[in-house]
Amino acid sequence: MKAFNDLADFSSEEISSLIELAGRLDAKPEPEALKGKVLSLLFLSPSLRTLASFQAAMTRLGGGSFVISPDMSIHGLETRPGIVMDGTAAEHIREAVPVIASYGDAIGIRAFAERKNIETDLEESEFSALIDLIDTPYINMESAMNHPCQSLADWKTIDDLGIPANGGRFVLSWAYHPKALPLAVPAASLHMAAQRGMDVTVLRPEGFELPQPLMQKAAAAAEASGGSVVETDDRREAMQDAHVIYAKSWSSTRHYGDRLADQKLREEHLDWCVDEPWFDNAREDCRFMHCLPVRRGVVVADGILDGPRSVVIAEARNRMLAQMAVLHQMLGGSS
Amino acid sequence: MKAFNDLADFSSEEISSLIELAGRLDAKPEPEALKGKVLSLLFLSPSLRTLASFQAAMTRLGGGSFVISPDMSIHGLETRPGIVMDGTAAEHIREAVPVIASYGDAIGIRAFAERKNIETDLEESEFSALIDLIDTPYINMESAMNHPCQSLADWKTIDDLGIPANGGRFVLSWAYHPKALPLAVPAASLHMAAQRGMDVTVLRPEGFELPQPLMQKAAAAAEASGGSVVETDDRREAMQDAHVIYAKSWSSTRHYGDRLADQKLREEHLDWCVDEPWFDNAREDCRFMHCLPVRRGVVVADGILDGPRSVVIAEARNRMLAQMAVLHQMLGGSS
Amino acid sequence: MKAFNDLADFSSEEISSLIELAGRLDAKPEPEALKGKVLSLLFLSPSLRTLASFQAAMTRLGGGSFVISPDMSIHGLETRPGIVMDGTAAEHIREAVPVIASYGDAIGIRAFAERKNIETDLEESEFSALIDLIDTPYINMESAMNHPCQSLADWKTIDDLGIPANGGRFVLSWAYHPKALPLAVPAASLHMAAQRGMDVTVLRPEGFELPQPLMQKAAAAAEASGGSVVETDDRREAMQDAHVIYAKSWSSTRHYGDRLADQKLREEHLDWCVDEPWFDNAREDCRFMHCLPVRRGVVVADGILDGPRSVVIAEARNRMLAQMAVLHQMLGGSS
Repeated sequence: MKAFNDLADFSSEEISSLIELAGRLDAKPEPEALKGKVLSLLFLSPSLRTLASFQAAMTRLGGGSFVISPDMSIHGLETRPGIVMDGTAAEHIREAVPVIASYGDAIGIRAFAERKNIETDLEESEFSALIDLIDTPYINMESAMNHPCQSLADWKTIDDLGIPANGGRFVLSWAYHPKALPLAVPAASLHMAAQRGMDVTVLRPEGFELPQPLMQKAAAAAEASGGSVVETDDRREAMQDAHVIYAKSWSSTRHYGDRLADQKLREEHLDWCVDEPWFDNAREDCRFMHCLPVRRGVVVADGILDGPRSVVIAEARNRMLAQMAVLHQMLGGSS
Repeated sequence: MKAFNDLADFSSEEISSLIELAGRLDAKPEPEALKGKVLSLLFLSPSLRTLASFQAAMTRLGGGSFVISPDMSIHGLETRPGIVMDGTAAEHIREAVPVIASYGDAIGIRAFAERKNIETDLEESEFSALIDLIDTPYINMESAMNHPCQSLADWKTIDDLGIPANGGRFVLSWAYHPKALPLAVPAASLHMAAQRGMDVTVLRPEGFELPQPLMQKAAAAAEASGGSVVETDDRREAMQDAHVIYAKSWSSTRHYGDRLADQKLREEHLDWCVDEPWFDNAREDCRFMHCLPVRRGVVVADGILDGPRSVVIAEARNRMLAQMAVLHQMLGGSS
Repeated sequence: MKAFNDLADFSSEEISSLIELAGRLDAKPEPEALKGKVLSLLFLSPSLRTLASFQAAMTRLGGGSFVISPDMSIHGLETRPGIVMDGTAAEHIREAVPVIASYGDAIGIRAFAERKNIETDLEESEFSALIDLIDTPYINMESAMNHPCQSLADWKTIDDLGIPANGGRFVLSWAYHPKALPLAVPAASLHMAAQRGMDVTVLRPEGFELPQPLMQKAAAAAEASGGSVVETDDRREAMQDAHVIYAKSWSSTRHYGDRLADQKLREEHLDWCVDEPWFDNAREDCRFMHCLPVRRGVVVADGILDGPRSVVIAEARNRMLAQMAVLHQMLGGSS
């Protein structure tokens, strides 16, 4: 495995095999599998779970990692091509990224969307510019429109719950949040559930439709897997017989890059806070998922997070296990 | 061992056995003892020695660790229960702490006292609220009123010096410092020396008495161990035949949580800076201990720190060795 | 090896043997060589490459490291001797440095020049004051006037290129940069090339002459190795038949410690940006080296960095390999 960039690059069989490996490494540790191997971790955006879970994953497999992140006293990194660097930035990504990559056997990179222009972000222009600089195997630790590590962990979480692939009903729901957040997690979750063969409903207010290229990619995946993808702003319709609701806030796509218009529109939907009444017509054991961090009382009520529906802690722990499987396949001799 | 939270939870035999293990791991390294094991390190307050010594300890035993600390670009953590999180904090400890714990085989947590209300701090309400969120084995890396890792290291340091348990004279002395500091170290040291069976004198100006619950707990430990606990503001009386003086500044308990009143009172005691004349009637080889960091010329004179009385560097190194013993017992197969 | 402080402390044979070891560890990993060993990393000045490459080096050899750096929420460190610490600094280096060292089997220390007085910096008074506090084996990770890890990596890089020792022509060239930078890298590179036996030309504008003690030390090394050292401000003369140009900006030595005068003088030399015309009379395959970070379009043109002359990424990767060799000799049983 030379890259772990998009779950869509892998067949369902390959994904199942990664998930099986994740479970096996949890049950039967392999503390010598990656002995002496190094993972470079480059964060151009902040992190808690990803930062912690990748470090823990490498240690559990007998290797190690180092972290370069924006809150370190590193020289500011210039990203623009062809610029005369007479300002504050002391280093260009054209040097920094290959050098950081050269110290590792693989590199994990996180770079958020610019969120100025949706086409640019859909093309993953920022992340691609970074990847183009290196030859090392790499892992996408969240880019403008993807978060494959989160999605692999989510897939495992749904498997662990025994929710069926075909026939399983997955609701990806927008929720209120005071800030305009990236589309990476909704984009990745939508595709993951469709690729798994589930019947997927995207529930969101008008103005928060997911971009057409993402919907089309997910629809194609659903067609191949025996699933389906629809979208609606009707909560009751969406939640009917749902096995799982995956909540997440995201930016308005109608006003992408326009913070004021986005804020005005989102503030009309303060009531999109997942709470028990949402589950009225869902399956009785319908579960609540969220990638975290989550704002209590804003995105979801305390009662849901503290009650039996929530699987968010197990989901977060699966981040580590899923990443161990990826690292094992990418850097290990044989599995 | 499921928790290392308070030295008082352990018998003298258990403590001796930990100290013996610490010495053995120093003399005869076990670089495979914790192979593939992970320690999560969560600092809600800053650290240098604890941060470094725990990382080094895990490496020496063949495992690893990761650090989450307040100076990282993590999303601010909300601690209040039942709050609507529409402010700056993006994550609640109810999610963050269990998730961080879930990546490790054990977790170390540091959370200082609030220092508003002394009863709340004596009840360890902040630290307990964190611990209640997890099932993982945990280590108290300093809480409002405790610092068991420091105390285990201090016990070992006193053992290393050959100072007798019963009959050994231990002075815990307040010292001047420009800031109102927590009670964790004096509380823990007081109990440690009493539990070790020493004759303990708490030397402090009026208004800096240690809280009654702490004095009573220490007196009970002294009764069980054959030691004694007294307090005084008379330096000469306190230092008579002392084997060791443990200096530390702490907040005024009379004006707890009232910074201005505390400051006014402490500034009357600028002369509480440990210096050679303090040792006039102590044992000739009376030693100086301090948990560090220490302010030279304020808490203690340079001559003491740079002379033969000081054992502060050995004491700090014992932090690492003591923690190795705790980790070995907590996470190792057999010792 | 008790110290890796200056390449000049080692014979050419010893250096060759380190470089050979570096290559061998790259080709044939030894992930158990430093099992359970700890390297303390103390940065009193910021870092990216050194930070990452030392952590990676220790992991590759089976050990580990911890980092104390100025951007952590550590208590400010006081460096002045004999001071009454009633200000903001909560800890003195006289405690902090020995304690940090005591947690490791070796310590790496970085402390930049004060850049007030050139004699003080040439005497390495700041770095020496730190080293005097410890007994542990140590590595100079950049001091006022030295950077032996960079130089060992550079020597290996030149070896890897097949550039001859005697007869190889090495140009150390000043370049424009908006800030007055330390002399550590030019000082170390000058000596490295002379010690390797090369014909060294220091190319710099007037006012940027390297200090006489550095030039004399290099001249003595050249005499012993069969090389030579000259300086000039004539680019054409310097570049004649050059095998390699090592570019680096540094402070004006005429106006050392005087920022305004330095700035005024350096701004007369905005055209000292290495570009293709510089290579007119050099060897056709003349290479470009730089320690990084480098400002594109300021120190060197994009075309050079992106073209076949540049070896800066390989040079940076050699940092890790060179340091692995040093750590292996310093901490390993046998090599």
